[in-house]
Amino acid sequence: MIRALAFDVFGTVVDWRSSIVAELEAFGRRHGLSEDWPAFADDWRAGYAPAMDRVRRGELPWTRIDDLHRGRLVELLSGAGIAVGDDEVDELNRAWHRLDPWPDTVAGLSRLKERFVITTLSNGNVSLLTNMAKRAGLPWDCVISAELFRHYKPDPEAYLGCADLLGVAPEELMLVAAHPGDLRAARSAGLRTGFVFRPLEHGPDRVLRMPPEGEFDVMAADFQDLADKLGA
Amino acid sequence: MIRALAFDVFGTVVDWRSSIVAELEAFGRRHGLSEDWPAFADDWRAGYAPAMDRVRRGELPWTRIDDLHRGRLVELLSGAGIAVGDDEVDELNRAWHRLDPWPDTVAGLSRLKERFVITTLSNGNVSLLTNMAKRAGLPWDCVISAELFRHYKPDPEAYLGCADLLGVAPEELMLVAAHPGDLRAARSAGLRTGFVFRPLEHGPDRVLRMPPEGEFDVMAADFQDLADKLGA
Repeated sequence: MIRALAFDVFGTVVDWRSSIVAELEAFGRRHGLSEDWPAFADDWRAGYAPAMDRVRRGELPWTRIDDLHRGRLVELLSGAGIAVGDDEVDELNRAWHRLDPWPDTVAGLSRLKERFVITTLSNGNVSLLTNMAKRAGLPWDCVISAELFRHYKPDPEAYLGCADLLGVAPEELMLVAAHPGDLRAARSAGLRTGFVFRPLEHGPDRVLRMPPEGEFDVMAADFQDLADKLGA
Repeated sequence: MIRALAFDVFGTVVDWRSSIVAELEAFGRRHGLSEDWPAFADDWRAGYAPAMDRVRRGELPWTRIDDLHRGRLVELLSGAGIAVGDDEVDELNRAWHRLDPWPDTVAGLSRLKERFVITTLSNGNVSLLTNMAKRAGLPWDCVISAELFRHYKPDPEAYLGCADLLGVAPEELMLVAAHPGDLRAARSAGLRTGFVFRPLEHGPDRVLRMPPEGEFDVMAADFQDLADKLGA
């Protein structure tokens, strides 16, 4: 029996790429800059996994995502020859706190919340997730982050720590994510798995495929479909 | 400038005593027992601070409130000669997850949420706070517990850890509580303080007095009054 759902956030709950591109375009207009902002957004995001892996391997001390994002942003701005003040960099970096949900997210979560405890389980830090939820109206019962365990996903400590905080057994907790690697790590830790297909996560030019039917416990087209399939 | 409000929960947000007495009375009816249930509730609660103090002094390893509550409950049931199964003890112990809010709580929090980030900062564990909020409709932006820091209030780590997770400076965070000792410890850690008067926390027979005017940054009669005084 599933008692709680833990959601990956970037890509699964929110459309980070469209949101970041729009923030970068607005930044460009404010500063009279013309850049390939979609490529800039992809480069910014591309720094995320390697930076977390350095933390996971112990090459960096625990560092929250806000600071990993900022480090990458400073490199990219510098590489593009863009010089702005620290406050401007901070403000742009906080674009990750202002990501918009996918169109089905809020309605789907609201249905799922009627039947299950719903929480984030994201590598994003607590303040990022809290500010995002407040702005976007995401109706979480609880905000759980890798920051609380000082272990980024896919370390097992993140999945098991989430179940422990919620007071449920690992098999009573389902990770919901658009990313097979995250789900496979959750399964290895004993969690149930719910895949949600987000074909546009990386934009219209990078086509994503559904994993094979049956790979995960539930496979859904979006959060409404997930609610249907979980009987919520 | 205050950016976030962190709320003490037991007594400040919820009326633990009326709720626990009602749960004990229902338990008594199910088992055909007659006891002085208000006194039993007070004895149960009276075990809370000494048990946390043992954890704070390092005499006990980290132990969550659910387990501290359960230990005290088992002692009290045994002392009263009441023998029930472990499942019944668990179910009764979870009464602390089902506490009812004071009448002004939900409406006041909803107003305050429009202007501030609002979180719990309770010695209750995360699952207790999450289940309570879900049942009672408490509209938290975030659920923060002493459990996340493995330091019970009034240890400074709890107050400073809360500010850190929210990404605000201590002076940008106000603790809201009905308990002067909690507020004084928060002030020592650099937080702002909001006192809310809950004269019935310990029942109608134990009269509580307002602290002297001016002792805390804001002093309010209830959460609606707090919202008025904070301009929410």
